[in-house]
Amino acid sequence: MVIVMKEGVSQQEIDFVIEKLHSVGAEAHVSQGEFMTVIGAIGDRENLLQLPFEAYPGVSKVIPVMKAYKMVSREFKPELTSIRVGAVTVGPKTFTIIAGPCSVESEEQVLMAARAARAAGATLFRGGAFKPRTNPYAFQGLGEEGLAILATAREETGLPIVTEVLDVRDIELVYRYADVLQVGARNMQNFLLLKELGFVDKPVLLKRGMSSTIEEMLMAAEYIAKEGNGDIILCERGIRTFETATRNTLDLSAVPYAREMTHLPIIVDPSHATGRRDLIQPLCRASLAVGADGVMVEIHPNPSEALCDGPQSLPLEDFKLLVEDLRPLAEFFKREI
Amino acid sequence: MVIVMKEGVSQQEIDFVIEKLHSVGAEAHVSQGEFMTVIGAIGDRENLLQLPFEAYPGVSKVIPVMKAYKMVSREFKPELTSIRVGAVTVGPKTFTIIAGPCSVESEEQVLMAARAARAAGATLFRGGAFKPRTNPYAFQGLGEEGLAILATAREETGLPIVTEVLDVRDIELVYRYADVLQVGARNMQNFLLLKELGFVDKPVLLKRGMSSTIEEMLMAAEYIAKEGNGDIILCERGIRTFETATRNTLDLSAVPYAREMTHLPIIVDPSHATGRRDLIQPLCRASLAVGADGVMVEIHPNPSEALCDGPQSLPLEDFKLLVEDLRPLAEFFKREI
Amino acid sequence: MVIVMKEGVSQQEIDFVIEKLHSVGAEAHVSQGEFMTVIGAIGDRENLLQLPFEAYPGVSKVIPVMKAYKMVSREFKPELTSIRVGAVTVGPKTFTIIAGPCSVESEEQVLMAARAARAAGATLFRGGAFKPRTNPYAFQGLGEEGLAILATAREETGLPIVTEVLDVRDIELVYRYADVLQVGARNMQNFLLLKELGFVDKPVLLKRGMSSTIEEMLMAAEYIAKEGNGDIILCERGIRTFETATRNTLDLSAVPYAREMTHLPIIVDPSHATGRRDLIQPLCRASLAVGADGVMVEIHPNPSEALCDGPQSLPLEDFKLLVEDLRPLAEFFKREI
Amino acid sequence: MVIVMKEGVSQQEIDFVIEKLHSVGAEAHVSQGEFMTVIGAIGDRENLLQLPFEAYPGVSKVIPVMKAYKMVSREFKPELTSIRVGAVTVGPKTFTIIAGPCSVESEEQVLMAARAARAAGATLFRGGAFKPRTNPYAFQGLGEEGLAILATAREETGLPIVTEVLDVRDIELVYRYADVLQVGARNMQNFLLLKELGFVDKPVLLKRGMSSTIEEMLMAAEYIAKEGNGDIILCERGIRTFETATRNTLDLSAVPYAREMTHLPIIVDPSHATGRRDLIQPLCRASLAVGADGVMVEIHPNPSEALCDGPQSLPLEDFKLLVEDLRPLAEFFKREI
Repeated sequence: MVIVMKEGVSQQEIDFVIEKLHSVGAEAHVSQGEFMTVIGAIGDRENLLQLPFEAYPGVSKVIPVMKAYKMVSREFKPELTSIRVGAVTVGPKTFTIIAGPCSVESEEQVLMAARAARAAGATLFRGGAFKPRTNPYAFQGLGEEGLAILATAREETGLPIVTEVLDVRDIELVYRYADVLQVGARNMQNFLLLKELGFVDKPVLLKRGMSSTIEEMLMAAEYIAKEGNGDIILCERGIRTFETATRNTLDLSAVPYAREMTHLPIIVDPSHATGRRDLIQPLCRASLAVGADGVMVEIHPNPSEALCDGPQSLPLEDFKLLVEDLRPLAEFFKREI
Repeated sequence: MVIVMKEGVSQQEIDFVIEKLHSVGAEAHVSQGEFMTVIGAIGDRENLLQLPFEAYPGVSKVIPVMKAYKMVSREFKPELTSIRVGAVTVGPKTFTIIAGPCSVESEEQVLMAARAARAAGATLFRGGAFKPRTNPYAFQGLGEEGLAILATAREETGLPIVTEVLDVRDIELVYRYADVLQVGARNMQNFLLLKELGFVDKPVLLKRGMSSTIEEMLMAAEYIAKEGNGDIILCERGIRTFETATRNTLDLSAVPYAREMTHLPIIVDPSHATGRRDLIQPLCRASLAVGADGVMVEIHPNPSEALCDGPQSLPLEDFKLLVEDLRPLAEFFKREI
Repeated sequence: MVIVMKEGVSQQEIDFVIEKLHSVGAEAHVSQGEFMTVIGAIGDRENLLQLPFEAYPGVSKVIPVMKAYKMVSREFKPELTSIRVGAVTVGPKTFTIIAGPCSVESEEQVLMAARAARAAGATLFRGGAFKPRTNPYAFQGLGEEGLAILATAREETGLPIVTEVLDVRDIELVYRYADVLQVGARNMQNFLLLKELGFVDKPVLLKRGMSSTIEEMLMAAEYIAKEGNGDIILCERGIRTFETATRNTLDLSAVPYAREMTHLPIIVDPSHATGRRDLIQPLCRASLAVGADGVMVEIHPNPSEALCDGPQSLPLEDFKLLVEDLRPLAEFFKREI
Repeated sequence: MVIVMKEGVSQQEIDFVIEKLHSVGAEAHVSQGEFMTVIGAIGDRENLLQLPFEAYPGVSKVIPVMKAYKMVSREFKPELTSIRVGAVTVGPKTFTIIAGPCSVESEEQVLMAARAARAAGATLFRGGAFKPRTNPYAFQGLGEEGLAILATAREETGLPIVTEVLDVRDIELVYRYADVLQVGARNMQNFLLLKELGFVDKPVLLKRGMSSTIEEMLMAAEYIAKEGNGDIILCERGIRTFETATRNTLDLSAVPYAREMTHLPIIVDPSHATGRRDLIQPLCRASLAVGADGVMVEIHPNPSEALCDGPQSLPLEDFKLLVEDLRPLAEFFKREI
């Protein structure tokens, strides 16, 4: 941690900071110049994070040098993590395609989508039983009935299920049906939900919040990891910007950046990022090329009737073409679909 | 709702949209031109919101004309709402000053802050017992012990308590101690929490999400209102932008804009918006002048020792000066502090 | 300047940085810890800015501690600057109201607006003869004919003229007619234009770029000041964010923040910031309260016929009411309108 | 154009809008419902754009349906444009690699870089002789001397030169030396510069402004095209967002989106987008996969000594590896490097 002092700081103020650092067992290295004084703080991360340096008299700003996450960092575990979901592996050697409708609407819809997903080559199946909707009057999901439908789809197709858990009170319920528990973008900083998922023995798919930095996503993952669950799949799904051509702005730089910072797998969701069906294929290609470990794509037997996110859902036949298109590229990059 | 069709749309595609509109009892008004076809949809809001127009073949875009919120809208209730909290009224005739520390750290700290808040002229007291922290290793709050300390402060000073509820499971607990239940920025779209707070008979203070539009804040408020709890205080607290001089960018235009759209009171939190103590006073003045119904300010007996948000907390004596500074301005605007 | 080295940095890499610092006459203060090495660089600002530290081997990041502007800084000149425009003073004792149409359309339109501006109490008159338009097919201004019309308005009303210069080639021409030369938001980083305006002996009104930080605005002002023209009026006019309720997001925190950093006057343009006539009055009040030295407001004799920015232009009678509304508040804050 | 009227609009207000539409030869299609009235306007784009609908009484909002650009649109010219620069073709069949240093510093530096660019397989060479710098005290380029050095590099290597023109006054000068004239991000809305470049008979490389939408970039290109110069290469180079891990946020969705909207080639600049050398390779791969027509990459013989953008510049040997890495992928996508 680097503590930059204000111009004209007094010796007393400098001593106060030094004393505080000593009080948590940290060392202070003072660089004093004509115009500027800087204190380098060396000590235990967790102890240093407890001190409110910026509120100390004479302090101008504090520059964190150490990362605020540990267990999910590449320093902590240099080799990349592979996560097992049933027979499926999500990690550096595969390119996992997760497909399914935004929301579970009926058994027929889900089974049609799941069969098509399976036939095309998806390895995980997604569908929402609990739907967070900005609009209070929009369809909010079928709840447990939806989960049961997803389980039926798994039984028939063998595809493990990824589904969102919105509420700490539903973790047990979702756990009974799901293979991967998804945390949605709006819940990325629902720290209590994250913490509880840290006690679960199934993988978590953590979506980046729409106004969260990559570093904040890694801190959110740390909330899960520090309770014991290290099976976390990160998901880049676009951030909020001024651009309105796409629903969000997909931040593909986040993939190689996260690859350096963390050992966890990271996938991309071009459907939510763009809200546009016509951009899915080029962005899936780009996700593969940029080094992502997979993609999550919305598909629907009949997008015109979808209760949620129709405009971005691929019809089932288009999904088939998409996977066919991606196969040779995955092979090029030596990733198994 | 206005449905803009793609160039070269077919009659069949137009008919499909019309048929769908009729299926929910809505009318369709078609404007067909050489280059462009537009369908005006007139019907019940909730019915129209169920239809996934953008996924229909031939549809280019859909422009919502009706608002997605109703009960919190000014059309629904033109007169401005005043909310009672004990002896305090939050509304168009007052300028409510909510003060207190970011987090409850000890009885001594809270009592000192509460006495100073009371003496200076604050009418509500705030303090966090449950703290959502981006950093998993930072102080997370004292929990129920913190709530009890807040209750003690209320007993001593008479100031009603505003405190955050982070988790649906804690609503009952927080309800027992709090006078106003706060929903933090990170939970603005925690729809289940909002819904549950709709069944509570105490006011809710709803903070704008850091990447939420004003319209989304109003939809979030609608989640609470539609379950029966109309006592909602909105709070502008800054949005996330590229500017780094302040922690967030305080959006004061949101106050008069919201004033036109909703009858609910709206206050401003300059402490979280800026993260800088030195900007609190001018922004409190501006909040008053722009028409806000109050401000929420962080204060601390000893900011250098604060476990949270020290740099933006006002020392108690500075808070006293702040309120003294605001009194004549409030009088100017005929608002009672 | 603080140079944070990468984990595992070698002594050779540290020495390389130290040597580079010495080569420009700067001192290096090294803080070496178990996990982290930090080098504090003390020396001449301009020399240090020439060194590409971030490209040196072993360097993780560089934290600028000194500001990149000097002459416009409050350290350089602690007392606030007042700028004379004819008989008008822009500075800490006045609240300058600049009014006028977005663009000069005709002599009649301009004279009507100027007379109304004068009668209501505006002290400067604005109007665009050269218009930067995003849309290549929109009205681009009357050019010199427009400037001549503005001069006629000045002759009749006595109000000094503020008008935009878009192009270095037009500086001489605009200089002949204008009293204050405006640099628009799109040109805030047109460094050659800024530099040339540094040689002019009339004041410059510099608008903040729509995606520029406050610091970048101050660096842009420094471009003008360092060539010799210190008469610069800064103007906050909203930044680009995800919020679409207003055209831009007015950043009123920028006013007190800039007040600490620079001695230059700063005004606010609520018309361009919001694009909404109904928000002008509350935001003018807020600008006054937050400490701005003035506002710039668009007015038009007939907004329905305006060739530019009609929706945000105030009709002349509304402008009269606006100034009447602001007078007592200006008096409250001891500023002369 | 769709004009949405306010609730409670009067017949007189509706008639006013209709009359205005008729006055420019446009048709009005009125959809009148219980809660809402909508007027579809059908007529000539340029005529309609002159009317300030939003300023008319009773108008709530105006939704542009037609695009504000024409000549650069895909509707105007469905087949993709290929642009010739000497022996080089930029377009759908090639993947153009433009390489070179951020700024021209010396003949030696430029010749080393140009030889390495040529040897590795770059087809165009870039280098800045005029540098727009946020910081007024930073190195601003060598000017004409720099242009002459670039010409020497072309002579030696045969690589055509891409270089930025900052100022209308320099167009002739830059034209004499350059093969492609670059418009930088800060000048994307310098409409006079764009217009003048419309009269030039050499290609223009137009970089997206850091806070410009894709649509605004296309309107900027239209400024050039409408004066007669249709040889425009678009360049995505990242937009400004809250994320600080990268210098800007590279918006790769812009590439396939622009591909649908315009026939012009579009390339990607990962160096300026990210500011990080370590992300160049994955993002070049992603650019290729997403359908870009090329990339622009900063290289330097000695990044530690670069006067500009060292941290994002690739050493020459790394650039060689980059091109080697991209060759098989380009072949996969049937694009010639």
